[in-house]
Amino acid sequence: MKQTPGEAELLEHIYEWSAGLHGLSGTFGEVVVGPGDDCAVIREPGGGLLLIGVDQLVEGRHFDPETPIDLAARKAVARAVSDIAAMGGRPCWALAAGVLSHGFDRSDALFDAMAAWAGHWGCPLIGGDIAFGPGPLTLSVTVAGRMNPGTPPLLRSGARPGDELWLTGQIGGSMASGWHLLFEPRLDAGVAAADSGQVRAAIDISDGLGRDADRVGRASGVRLEIDATKLPVSHHSRGWHDACREGEDYELL
Amino acid sequence: MKQTPGEAELLEHIYEWSAGLHGLSGTFGEVVVGPGDDCAVIREPGGGLLLIGVDQLVEGRHFDPETPIDLAARKAVARAVSDIAAMGGRPCWALAAGVLSHGFDRSDALFDAMAAWAGHWGCPLIGGDIAFGPGPLTLSVTVAGRMNPGTPPLLRSGARPGDELWLTGQIGGSMASGWHLLFEPRLDAGVAAADSGQVRAAIDISDGLGRDADRVGRASGVRLEIDATKLPVSHHSRGWHDACREGEDYELL
Repeated sequence: MKQTPGEAELLEHIYEWSAGLHGLSGTFGEVVVGPGDDCAVIREPGGGLLLIGVDQLVEGRHFDPETPIDLAARKAVARAVSDIAAMGGRPCWALAAGVLSHGFDRSDALFDAMAAWAGHWGCPLIGGDIAFGPGPLTLSVTVAGRMNPGTPPLLRSGARPGDELWLTGQIGGSMASGWHLLFEPRLDAGVAAADSGQVRAAIDISDGLGRDADRVGRASGVRLEIDATKLPVSHHSRGWHDACREGEDYELL
Repeated sequence: MKQTPGEAELLEHIYEWSAGLHGLSGTFGEVVVGPGDDCAVIREPGGGLLLIGVDQLVEGRHFDPETPIDLAARKAVARAVSDIAAMGGRPCWALAAGVLSHGFDRSDALFDAMAAWAGHWGCPLIGGDIAFGPGPLTLSVTVAGRMNPGTPPLLRSGARPGDELWLTGQIGGSMASGWHLLFEPRLDAGVAAADSGQVRAAIDISDGLGRDADRVGRASGVRLEIDATKLPVSHHSRGWHDACREGEDYELL
């Protein structure tokens, strides 16, 4: 989805004040990665790495009101799971919160579907919250994940000059083709990339290759060169330029 | 806040399907408490108990549009912190997600305030998500907490016949007096209660003493007897009957 003007500035602002969090430690462990990557990373007292991310889904923005409730639930969970994939982790538990409009009569089906999809990706839904409000259906899913022991998470800031760029699949036309409701979070690819020790950085390109590649470049302090003729552009997109801008692809770069 | 008709049934439905989660174990540890209490509880591989809760704040429902942004941010964080307090834990980290209306121009102030309040209660804001939508401002805060070593969390299901009932403060008139924006999550009382070994059950009475006492009774399989003449009713409320129904008190029972 495109960012509204102001969102980039707000994110910049948040990253600035959160810079002081890195290395912060307490009884909860240590903050290894704070705001600004796909997930936050905490080193727990026992030594393990816990990944934590939250993602939101807003009716009318991320899905049409006509979308079957099962697919809206799927996307809400899959978006959050994709953030874990982008760090190279495996999801382990999830929380789901929803703001429902008054009179919404598919609540049972919605939460059943979120629980089923969460279980599908290995992160049982262990809690949540329900509120009612005047706005569109809004779902917020928090997912935790774990890295394989000894494997550092893939950060946006890890890219180095000379690194190759890889994509886990096609880009573009995700909204037109319905793929944005059916995409498979690249968990296996993420874990394989992290475990290989050969991959230094990753991001899920939910905001479009253009914007997300730029984020990797800025975080890593490198310039990314992408040959447009080599991009795996979906035939649902009108071309590489659109495909880089549209977003909702959820592939890993 | 009052529950919309249907919310109680939905919660009942969620608790039913989640009953199978208790004792579920995996690489993430073990689910000690799933949906149905103030927080979920996970026993981590290292043996510690992690409390996880999420709470939402919706403009027009939980606060007026005229509310100063700092107080809305405060309430969003405090509600989630109160769920940790109700289990007898200490908050350790938080995530904040917000759906902002297009053109919302106080984003920086909002997230600064949420970060400041999260830090105030000991849970640095380590991540989050921002989306824009057509609806009212909606904030969703996930908070994790920890129990003191060896201390089991206070559950809704722990009450036994003969137990005394205690409240940490006054009830009623919270919206009228503005207390709902200024309440102090009862962290010290929660930790003291859990550590004492004398307190067997707790809940934060955000939905009103009547509804929340009923939840403790049902979860514990006991009948609660409350002498209305002994209730610490705020002078901002019209009487004990209203005070039990209004909600937004955030005291611990």
